[in-house]
Amino acid sequence: MSNPTIPYKIYLNETEMPKAWYNLRADMKVKPAPLLNPGTHEPMKAEELAGVFCEELIKQELDDTTPFFEIPEPIRNFYKMYRPSPLVRAYCLEEKLQTPANIYYKFEGNNTSGSHKLNSAIAQAYYAKQQGLKGVTTETGAGQWGTALSMACSYFGLDCKVYMVKVSYEQKPFRREVMRTYGASVTPSPSMDTAVGRKILAEHPGTTGSLGCAISEAVEVATSTPGYRYVLGSVLNQVLLHQSVIGLETKAALDKYNIKPDIIIGCAGGGSNLGGLIAPFMGEKLRGEADYRIIAVEPASCPSFTRGTYAYDFCDTGMVCPLAKMYTLGSGFIPAPNHAGGLRYHGMSSTLSELYHQGLMEAVSVPQTSVFEAAEAFARVEGILPAPESSHAIKVAIDEALKCKETGEEKTIVFGLTGTGYFDMTAYEKFHDGKMTDYIPTDEDLQNSLSKLPVV
Amino acid sequence: MSNPTIPYKIYLNETEMPKAWYNLRADMKVKPAPLLNPGTHEPMKAEELAGVFCEELIKQELDDTTPFFEIPEPIRNFYKMYRPSPLVRAYCLEEKLQTPANIYYKFEGNNTSGSHKLNSAIAQAYYAKQQGLKGVTTETGAGQWGTALSMACSYFGLDCKVYMVKVSYEQKPFRREVMRTYGASVTPSPSMDTAVGRKILAEHPGTTGSLGCAISEAVEVATSTPGYRYVLGSVLNQVLLHQSVIGLETKAALDKYNIKPDIIIGCAGGGSNLGGLIAPFMGEKLRGEADYRIIAVEPASCPSFTRGTYAYDFCDTGMVCPLAKMYTLGSGFIPAPNHAGGLRYHGMSSTLSELYHQGLMEAVSVPQTSVFEAAEAFARVEGILPAPESSHAIKVAIDEALKCKETGEEKTIVFGLTGTGYFDMTAYEKFHDGKMTDYIPTDEDLQNSLSKLPVV
Repeated sequence: MSNPTIPYKIYLNETEMPKAWYNLRADMKVKPAPLLNPGTHEPMKAEELAGVFCEELIKQELDDTTPFFEIPEPIRNFYKMYRPSPLVRAYCLEEKLQTPANIYYKFEGNNTSGSHKLNSAIAQAYYAKQQGLKGVTTETGAGQWGTALSMACSYFGLDCKVYMVKVSYEQKPFRREVMRTYGASVTPSPSMDTAVGRKILAEHPGTTGSLGCAISEAVEVATSTPGYRYVLGSVLNQVLLHQSVIGLETKAALDKYNIKPDIIIGCAGGGSNLGGLIAPFMGEKLRGEADYRIIAVEPASCPSFTRGTYAYDFCDTGMVCPLAKMYTLGSGFIPAPNHAGGLRYHGMSSTLSELYHQGLMEAVSVPQTSVFEAAEAFARVEGILPAPESSHAIKVAIDEALKCKETGEEKTIVFGLTGTGYFDMTAYEKFHDGKMTDYIPTDEDLQNSLSKLPVV
Repeated sequence: MSNPTIPYKIYLNETEMPKAWYNLRADMKVKPAPLLNPGTHEPMKAEELAGVFCEELIKQELDDTTPFFEIPEPIRNFYKMYRPSPLVRAYCLEEKLQTPANIYYKFEGNNTSGSHKLNSAIAQAYYAKQQGLKGVTTETGAGQWGTALSMACSYFGLDCKVYMVKVSYEQKPFRREVMRTYGASVTPSPSMDTAVGRKILAEHPGTTGSLGCAISEAVEVATSTPGYRYVLGSVLNQVLLHQSVIGLETKAALDKYNIKPDIIIGCAGGGSNLGGLIAPFMGEKLRGEADYRIIAVEPASCPSFTRGTYAYDFCDTGMVCPLAKMYTLGSGFIPAPNHAGGLRYHGMSSTLSELYHQGLMEAVSVPQTSVFEAAEAFARVEGILPAPESSHAIKVAIDEALKCKETGEEKTIVFGLTGTGYFDMTAYEKFHDGKMTDYIPTDEDLQNSLSKLPVV
């Protein structure tokens, strides 16, 4: 740690913040497969999506050729309240590990939503407001997305209805209060409010819920309530587009100090953080300008990349949404109740799925006790108490740094620290009390949920 | 909000961060009254304090002439992990209030302890480590200081024993888990672990605890365990010294843009944040170089400045600590159980007490429901969900900004946003459910607790 010329935290100036989002799909030769109409199996047209999504967001969703979308000024102003986020040099972690590797993390947790989710929430709320809507509906798992959307809706004066996966609603009562502080209504899912919720509860009375269920409920409410649309915090192309602000800032900060990463690591649930973090780097890779090892890290209890199938599937349990081609565990897959935190979606962003399918990135899955061990070790040296989701990336960053220690290589590792774990202390308590367990689905479990893929 | 030339957040570069703490007492003509030995009523000597405090910290405590203390490099490196903290221009709050005032806040919540407390915790842990100690003991109220100290001890490999005010321990179970993540032990106070705890429990079986009780327990354990010392998160001169980093950064950031504040506002419990925030400004005032209105804000339920007496008193309930001259409600004063958050100390920093006594600053007290109203309004426009403590300053900053609206004056208001409320959602829940009440002690309550002041 002697006289580092690179500061502990690299901050961009406000004037250096990105003025446009980067649309990774524009640089892909083989594009992600389109969303399909679940009835006709034809590619979804903008007008078919108009009852579900905001108009401007549909344009962004379907556009795979325009490389940059200007960030509207009101969104840039909101970004200035909590961005640019710091790119942190993990000097203390490096010293603790005694690794020759240089480790950096892009920290997205310094805002009240506690994660990167706010980057897309504010964009989606803005476009909903522009369209003159009254409100939006959504689902939330760990609660980060719901919190982010509540903040964004409050800022623009929109109503916000959140369907929260029941297990998270119960494990994270304080998240609900944060959302209420921002004026949102929060309903545990599945609920009796919707036809799809009632159906799921009748079939699985003891269910702890899943993101897939909650999506179905939120979509039903949005499409049946005048002046409302549905918004989603991950998986979709539009979300990856907004989240590109993470990668663009990261790259600008690295470029400022002429740093070239060797390995880029991100946790992956639906892919919003990973897709955003890697966007400009993957762009260079696609254009043949540079090469990077890119690693997606997912929980062993919900391993869509590493054990899923690349196929068209429903995005939700209720099968009301369009079909997406993605790495999936089957839309009926629900992670075991002992699974803590987010990263519990059965599928994965179509864009990331296609990139993974093309061999442009790697994926690993890690069991949750090892994730919490990494989280605690990180917290003790770097100060920040990380979200369980983010800690998946920490775990693999540490593993890679330890490999460098063995080989003596001075690699540069960049990972995404998507958020803080302040609302995940129930899970940390289990870990401290030695009551945390790992659950890895059996092949039979997966065969069962994958047997119900739609035939396209 | 048209093209502001002042950014939303003013960040200093790492090279612009303070390299020395500023000791406000050096510029005071009438010094704060010295600590007294509770037996002899003579000023405490360094050797008498040596069993309780670390040596270097005693030097800092007793030195009222040296204006600057160099910040040791390991502490400056730790600061770089979460500092400089941003000085935020509250553009959105100004717009919401439609005030001509320019509002700035120094935000100290962007670290896992969630508050400014880490600034002193890391210093105190460093000096304990330098002295070769095994560990430290302390008390914590709302849990912010305990969390901060846990982080600091974990960083330097020290054991950390925290006595946590029982009501907070119960209201904030997740704080305990954060402390455990950093390896600290946490005991609800009063406890049966100590003689003083057993005595207090025998006399007041149903007590929800107080900072004064918890201090007594922590001091007893420190002085009776070899290799341990006691550390404190507020009130003391050494703490105000370390916290001057807040004010020094604030002043440097304002100077960068040639901004002169008219009003500086801080919440006040024991005075650590307020004393740190105002230090360089009060220094200018003492030296006759500039004038500022400086306002301390305290809870109506624990109004030491506005309704206390300026007198020598015990710092703790168990009466084991030295006597300090301060504005006090009496060492037996315990805020009503419905009081949320911190700012529950019966006394106030001797330095701030003397400055207030000299008429160099003002003080106001505010009831907690008005504080939570201000907190929610702030969260909705500025994004950050504030700690109840910090929201006292928000409340008065808004009041002052609204006065400017009436008069049309374009005053510059700076306030300290000491931390985030992520572990205070139980209180927010009460507020949302309309179950929050105000409690203002009666004159009889205060006469009762003040009747037990020591005769000096």
